[in-house]
Amino acid sequence: MDANLLPAKPLSAVERGGLYRTIFTRRDTRGEFLPEPIPDDILARLLTSAHHAPSVGFMQPWNFIIIKDIEVRRQVHAAFTKAHEEAAQMFPLEQQEIYRSLKLEGILEAPVNICVTCDRDRAGPVVIGRTHIRTMDIYSSVCAVQNLWLAARAEGLGLGWVSIFDNCEVQRVLSIPEGIVPVAYLCLGKVSGYHRQPELETAGWRSRVPLNELVYLNQWGSEGQSGLSKEIREAQKFAQSHACSRD
Amino acid sequence: MDANLLPAKPLSAVERGGLYRTIFTRRDTRGEFLPEPIPDDILARLLTSAHHAPSVGFMQPWNFIIIKDIEVRRQVHAAFTKAHEEAAQMFPLEQQEIYRSLKLEGILEAPVNICVTCDRDRAGPVVIGRTHIRTMDIYSSVCAVQNLWLAARAEGLGLGWVSIFDNCEVQRVLSIPEGIVPVAYLCLGKVSGYHRQPELETAGWRSRVPLNELVYLNQWGSEGQSGLSKEIREAQKFAQSHACSRD
Repeated sequence: MDANLLPAKPLSAVERGGLYRTIFTRRDTRGEFLPEPIPDDILARLLTSAHHAPSVGFMQPWNFIIIKDIEVRRQVHAAFTKAHEEAAQMFPLEQQEIYRSLKLEGILEAPVNICVTCDRDRAGPVVIGRTHIRTMDIYSSVCAVQNLWLAARAEGLGLGWVSIFDNCEVQRVLSIPEGIVPVAYLCLGKVSGYHRQPELETAGWRSRVPLNELVYLNQWGSEGQSGLSKEIREAQKFAQSHACSRD
Repeated sequence: MDANLLPAKPLSAVERGGLYRTIFTRRDTRGEFLPEPIPDDILARLLTSAHHAPSVGFMQPWNFIIIKDIEVRRQVHAAFTKAHEEAAQMFPLEQQEIYRSLKLEGILEAPVNICVTCDRDRAGPVVIGRTHIRTMDIYSSVCAVQNLWLAARAEGLGLGWVSIFDNCEVQRVLSIPEGIVPVAYLCLGKVSGYHRQPELETAGWRSRVPLNELVYLNQWGSEGQSGLSKEIREAQKFAQSHACSRD
């Protein structure tokens, strides 16, 4: 083995269990934020986790705007309120009441908001791995969001991704220059608890799709031929066992 | 506290350490794949992790095409080779030789390839949270990729994201219908080891950007005013301590 490489061993069972428990209990938090501040050392650890996400051509195209100022958050919230009302009217009449009853963001309740952006010019016009799929840099910023989210869960915090507003409004409120894309607007804070399953599932809005229906072999559409049906059922039990609280 | 909620406690130090070690040692693998097959139970656990990613409106827009067939992989590899040569010519002359020397994929060496897609119509035309930012469903599929990647690392496997080809070619080779977007093409397998730092960093192509330069407070461009400089330096040490092998 190349001595410069780290050995490719699995993590210990407890460490691996930590990752899986994080993945299977992570939730989008909207209504459970507590007002107390987040310790700065934890916030820094979350940002460092995001900064170690994969990025195309090692471009690291992200910035992180930490928003604590209540006046700035009020302006973002106003953009949400406007878009939320527009959104309600897009649904069929019978769904509009349910839609309006859903709590979809915690912009003002969460003590910290974070806007994760993508600087499309971070590494010049030609970027390794982005020559043919131009959106790869945006995808890198999304990977940073997911790292941040998982770290937040492991630290016992809640995070919610707000996507109901006109991005141009957010761009204006945060003085984000042209050429920089606001990819995600996140609400972060301590929470009173985590929902046991996604809220839209509990509300009967949508169910979890059986994974077996989503896995194909070699070609699109070869449903049920993955040869993994039994293992996927077992993995589902594994996920459930990691989604339970041991506290 | 609402008895229906799981308590929002941090994970234990060891479990949290498992997540952080995964995040800080995850690499994009291209050249270290071993030919032996991956156990199906581990593959199923990776897919289940991906399936538990956040998704806008609980849309779960992803499918996973597992590609083991060597003939299919050869066709994808041909698409890569074509695009790779086109890409080389986009770089300034002095960079072309370095670019050509880089190993950027393991399509044929890795025993398993996975194409992660996004079905834009999975939940009908109006989706909660996607009314104003249409790309949110694509972002959900990217979050699934990142979950899968981290689970692969925790299991001691390697994963590489190949993005150098014309997506239409991949779509044709895998018979992916119109309306379904191929978001990521992944190579997965056992590996001889993990690089200690990103290969493009080692190659001198790009350095890691100091995180402090990327964090702003309340507005774009307020560099150095985040109030987190000290904590970010500490978190950097924390990251390094989790990036070391203990084996």
